[in-house]
Amino acid sequence: MTISIAHLGPPGTYTEQASVVYINWLTKSTGVEAMLSPYPSISQSLHAVADGQAHLAVVPAENSIEGSVTTTLDTLWQLDNLRIQLALVLPIVHTLISCASSLDKIKTVYSHPQALAQCQGWLERFLPTVEIIPSNSTTEALQRLEQETTMAAIASSRAAQLYNLPILASGINDNPENFTRFWVVSQGEMDAAYQVTKAPASHTSLAFSMPANTPGALVKPLQIFAQLGINLSRIESRPTKRSLGEYLFFIDVEADANQTHMQSALTELSIHTEILKIMGTYDVLPVSAF
Amino acid sequence: MTISIAHLGPPGTYTEQASVVYINWLTKSTGVEAMLSPYPSISQSLHAVADGQAHLAVVPAENSIEGSVTTTLDTLWQLDNLRIQLALVLPIVHTLISCASSLDKIKTVYSHPQALAQCQGWLERFLPTVEIIPSNSTTEALQRLEQETTMAAIASSRAAQLYNLPILASGINDNPENFTRFWVVSQGEMDAAYQVTKAPASHTSLAFSMPANTPGALVKPLQIFAQLGINLSRIESRPTKRSLGEYLFFIDVEADANQTHMQSALTELSIHTEILKIMGTYDVLPVSAF
Repeated sequence: MTISIAHLGPPGTYTEQASVVYINWLTKSTGVEAMLSPYPSISQSLHAVADGQAHLAVVPAENSIEGSVTTTLDTLWQLDNLRIQLALVLPIVHTLISCASSLDKIKTVYSHPQALAQCQGWLERFLPTVEIIPSNSTTEALQRLEQETTMAAIASSRAAQLYNLPILASGINDNPENFTRFWVVSQGEMDAAYQVTKAPASHTSLAFSMPANTPGALVKPLQIFAQLGINLSRIESRPTKRSLGEYLFFIDVEADANQTHMQSALTELSIHTEILKIMGTYDVLPVSAF
Repeated sequence: MTISIAHLGPPGTYTEQASVVYINWLTKSTGVEAMLSPYPSISQSLHAVADGQAHLAVVPAENSIEGSVTTTLDTLWQLDNLRIQLALVLPIVHTLISCASSLDKIKTVYSHPQALAQCQGWLERFLPTVEIIPSNSTTEALQRLEQETTMAAIASSRAAQLYNLPILASGINDNPENFTRFWVVSQGEMDAAYQVTKAPASHTSLAFSMPANTPGALVKPLQIFAQLGINLSRIESRPTKRSLGEYLFFIDVEADANQTHMQSALTELSIHTEILKIMGTYDVLPVSAF
């Protein structure tokens, strides 16, 4: 059996790297093979799963420096039939890729806005006069580097290898503690053939809107979890897109959605929320799988 | 007296438009004149105030569709000597600007990632095959449109007027309820010569980190405000940038920081937080000022 994994392309993005880690672990655990399907945006990779064009999508959820990947949260809220099946955390190490003979020959630097933001201090110090140009992914500009030798791109060392391009500087992210959490997403429940995680799962991701439309009303949902001793590992607010000052909340809790105390929490939560979505109950891929 | 207002440039951005609204109101209220100082990034416009190069900065805080402007929050957290002095809310109406004779001649569309995201549906419907290219601001690409007639940009109608460029389509944002909240920021307390707001102010913006490092601990700060009957209008989490899963919280409350019940809340809050910053206590510019 071979399944398809939708991810942000072109080949060589950090999301593709996370997909490869996941595929290696999946094949080892289940014998199921997988092929990579690059998409031009995160939203399109999630739509591909919702529409049945791909079996799974691997999408970035949050980065330790730049925070939530809002397009992932907003698209998961819109699409009703998707479920998070697994989380995995990847260290992010940026390199400067260019065919220029030295740093002082570089005039423009391309990358995804998150990568550019993560290397801002290094760029100000070593390339203070270059033009910084945002692109849709870290690898979008790589194919043009061979022709244009005054151009550079920020991407992973793996991307440099894939495109056979020289690395001028490594580990250029300002903060060495740079990690991205990715989610593996399927349509509804995952096919048993490639379902590895066993209950109880370690995490559940929820999203909800509030009838009262004020973040002050958030105190009640937080109390429900606190009183049942369920730890929250993350809270994120996003606009409802209806009116300025109206928010959705995304909450990650450290419990399986099917456990008794979580069932009680979810029942009580549904009374205090307008729309409540369980986006998935899942484990985090152990580091030993890498 | 003439003061300088730092804002995201080049001229014609929505932030410049908000600055002009503010300046008109300021001059009418106090007689103080102001000149515009465009900067290539939001972060640089805030640093200009922190370093004393500009008197005030106008920066976007959040949009009703795309959410928080994270670079504004992160820079305000880093810079200790800045204070929010006023908020103003501007409706956002995007137009497609191009020298192309018709829509089908357009091959590339440039704009700020937030504007591109806000017009995604329109672009998919009317320009499904064009290449979408993110830029540092809505107006960055405008100077090149006259030479390159297959190029278009998404910006305000005011920007089209400023650059004397044709508008091919108006009101192209997917959601007509599109508003951005801006903040006027000064170094410490605002100079009395251009301080218009009178106590009590309607809003206070706070930011804090938690010693326990878990969002679950957020229930206590929310309870403090709930018990004192202080309404919260917004909660935002941002990474501490130290470690994945560690967050800062940005909270807007509907009270003046100097009122008695807010003083009690802040005293109690300081016990439960690691670093607590009062980013400003301020009013919202009335619509009648526009």
